[in-house]
Amino acid sequence: MPDLHLQHACAVTLDDQFRLIDDATIVVSDARIVYIGTAAGAPAPRPGDRVIDATGKVALPGLINAHTHLAMTLFRGAVDDLPLKAWLEEKIWPAEVHFTPEDVYWASRLGIAEMLRAGVTTFSDMYWHVEAVADAVRESGIRACLSGVVIGVLPGADAILDRAIERVKGFIDEGNPRIIPFFGPHAPYTVPEPMLRRIIEAAAELGVGINTHLSETPDEVAQSLQISGMTPIAYVNQVGLFSVPTTAAHCVHPTEEEVGILAGQRVGVVHCASSNMKLGSGIAPVPALLNAGVTVGLGTDGAGSNNTLDIMREMRLTALLHKVGGDPTAVSAPQALHMATRGGALALNLPDLGALEAGTLADIILLDFDKPHLTPAGRVVSDLVYAAYGSDVDTVIVHGQVLMEGRKLLTLDEERIRAKVNESARRLFGS
Amino acid sequence: MPDLHLQHACAVTLDDQFRLIDDATIVVSDARIVYIGTAAGAPAPRPGDRVIDATGKVALPGLINAHTHLAMTLFRGAVDDLPLKAWLEEKIWPAEVHFTPEDVYWASRLGIAEMLRAGVTTFSDMYWHVEAVADAVRESGIRACLSGVVIGVLPGADAILDRAIERVKGFIDEGNPRIIPFFGPHAPYTVPEPMLRRIIEAAAELGVGINTHLSETPDEVAQSLQISGMTPIAYVNQVGLFSVPTTAAHCVHPTEEEVGILAGQRVGVVHCASSNMKLGSGIAPVPALLNAGVTVGLGTDGAGSNNTLDIMREMRLTALLHKVGGDPTAVSAPQALHMATRGGALALNLPDLGALEAGTLADIILLDFDKPHLTPAGRVVSDLVYAAYGSDVDTVIVHGQVLMEGRKLLTLDEERIRAKVNESARRLFGS
Repeated sequence: MPDLHLQHACAVTLDDQFRLIDDATIVVSDARIVYIGTAAGAPAPRPGDRVIDATGKVALPGLINAHTHLAMTLFRGAVDDLPLKAWLEEKIWPAEVHFTPEDVYWASRLGIAEMLRAGVTTFSDMYWHVEAVADAVRESGIRACLSGVVIGVLPGADAILDRAIERVKGFIDEGNPRIIPFFGPHAPYTVPEPMLRRIIEAAAELGVGINTHLSETPDEVAQSLQISGMTPIAYVNQVGLFSVPTTAAHCVHPTEEEVGILAGQRVGVVHCASSNMKLGSGIAPVPALLNAGVTVGLGTDGAGSNNTLDIMREMRLTALLHKVGGDPTAVSAPQALHMATRGGALALNLPDLGALEAGTLADIILLDFDKPHLTPAGRVVSDLVYAAYGSDVDTVIVHGQVLMEGRKLLTLDEERIRAKVNESARRLFGS
Repeated sequence: MPDLHLQHACAVTLDDQFRLIDDATIVVSDARIVYIGTAAGAPAPRPGDRVIDATGKVALPGLINAHTHLAMTLFRGAVDDLPLKAWLEEKIWPAEVHFTPEDVYWASRLGIAEMLRAGVTTFSDMYWHVEAVADAVRESGIRACLSGVVIGVLPGADAILDRAIERVKGFIDEGNPRIIPFFGPHAPYTVPEPMLRRIIEAAAELGVGINTHLSETPDEVAQSLQISGMTPIAYVNQVGLFSVPTTAAHCVHPTEEEVGILAGQRVGVVHCASSNMKLGSGIAPVPALLNAGVTVGLGTDGAGSNNTLDIMREMRLTALLHKVGGDPTAVSAPQALHMATRGGALALNLPDLGALEAGTLADIILLDFDKPHLTPAGRVVSDLVYAAYGSDVDTVIVHGQVLMEGRKLLTLDEERIRAKVNESARRLFGS
């Protein structure tokens, strides 16, 4: 396979020194970055190598959407401005029962098209019909952490869990480096303790992580206290959840003690600013989490409560949201950028992602900075966080493969995807 | 002048019935909409008329950026993550002293390019060197409310005010329907009472409105109480400010009594969600203002504290921000859309704008909805508020003139503008 040379980019490396390299060359061999640095020190392209001129463009590690429910693109714009409980129980769950694998397949492809267009190269999903999601991932070239949902309070829960275990084994056997299996117990309030223990055991045995929702709403905290006498994070910690690598979405209402648990047990927290705002769930104490040393990534949650899958948007919103308490120094632009890239990778236990360094996997995006809203020039980190759009992403590379170039998707037929999703939406929602 | 026919659009009219018209035809004659409705009822194009096929596009009244400081595009990304007082006094004001009319001219053109690209067709500006801003407005074809800043505590304030009065007279004499003069007393804490009275008198005499900042931060409120014994809105009301049509930016900290004053005196309030969040100024009580019947529009504030001039962004943020208190029904999608269009027009006392109706001025934008992030189809109002980007705007019409088509600006040379602004930035900031 020929190498890929990106030349003349302004590279925002997200390495430990937070280095910016002007006029950088990045060389990709197979699926990994083998060189990043000045043009002077770069190996010359060999005959047959591919060269991309990135003049006027900013190179960034691919963005990480560390928590979503991909096929909920079907719910985009269907139900707005409702609280979480009513939204889930009255609107979402009754409709989801009718989703077929075919619906999920096309809705997932739609979500992948949307994410690639906005520079997301890895996402972590929790949804039904995970084989259909996996097919969409395999074909599109994007990278994904896949967990089927396990809800213990549903009829047939044991069978659901058995299938989830088989599926994880299947993904492990497949060995696709772009599919990372997780277990997905929905939340402590929907998965009874014995089943949660079974999942923890299976995850430990198979060497995979767990993806769950934790401490999302005040209601959840109150209910947890009533049932177990403990707040949700303390409760799952006592059950032993954090003995396996865990990625916990939301964590909006941790106690001070629970912040210590998240830091000490190396739990990856995924902050979902739009979703928490839209559902009125509260404001996660992100500055306190960061101060305590917790690894924090960003997630969009599903398109039903966002209503997009755009991590550029979450980055800006995160930088703004935590200032509303009155401290405009809370969550700086570099911190927000870190969460959208390196933080998300680490929260998913994927240390080979989220930075541009020799040896990391080649998930790279190029943003076109020749735009009025990104002028004056030379204010790259601020512009990335506070001014840029997902639509400024010009080129997307995942695992060394170019998936979008000049804003054209190379592996997905958008028109067909949109037609198929519109068909599903008409059947499911009657409009 | 030939008429302009937009055909096959989905029109979101923002009229009093909040009508959506599928497959709408809009006919523009000279500067006004003369027909909007079904294709069946539309007058046929005559020879020489211009026809635009808007299939797959949503037609919306042009967005109103009801509060900005346009040339502060020069500050974009220069100073982030600081409180208002330090930001203004240590960073912004010392740099602004060195701005030349030439700097302001090019920085204003940059801001206009950015706004047109994001569907803003009218903005309300308050800045220095207002003649340079006016030149940029005249040449670009956009519509603007222009107020030079009057700061009474500066040396030579009387001369500044004299010049402001002459300038307003000049704009009135010019009679350009796209330039609406305002007076711009900066804020009660920078304009002493005698000067504020002079401005109110001049505004009444010349029949123009006043554009000011009010009740932006807790510090402003505390200082006002200390000096006048009154909170800022009550204070300026007592001075007589609201005897002339007034547009007040921010209003983050009104008392309950002051909410009543804003409603009763028909003050137009401009909510600046991004700026208030970024500077840690607090959360304006927008749901309470709307409930009280106050007219509320949206503003970006300057690019120094936003960092863009994009009202699509403010619309989504406004719908999300007011839910953080725990009420996910606060500020619905239709309410946010209203503020971004009709609300902004009314807050600026421009009732001929902000809706698509026969007789209104032809400020119209077309958004391309054939996009993954705007699928499934048919959820237009939700998508406009929660999912769409400024970059989905395809066509922009102001005063009957097409200023952008297929995302190409027809009256502005973006490359030259960016080069000029980069020159200014290098001279002013040394980078």
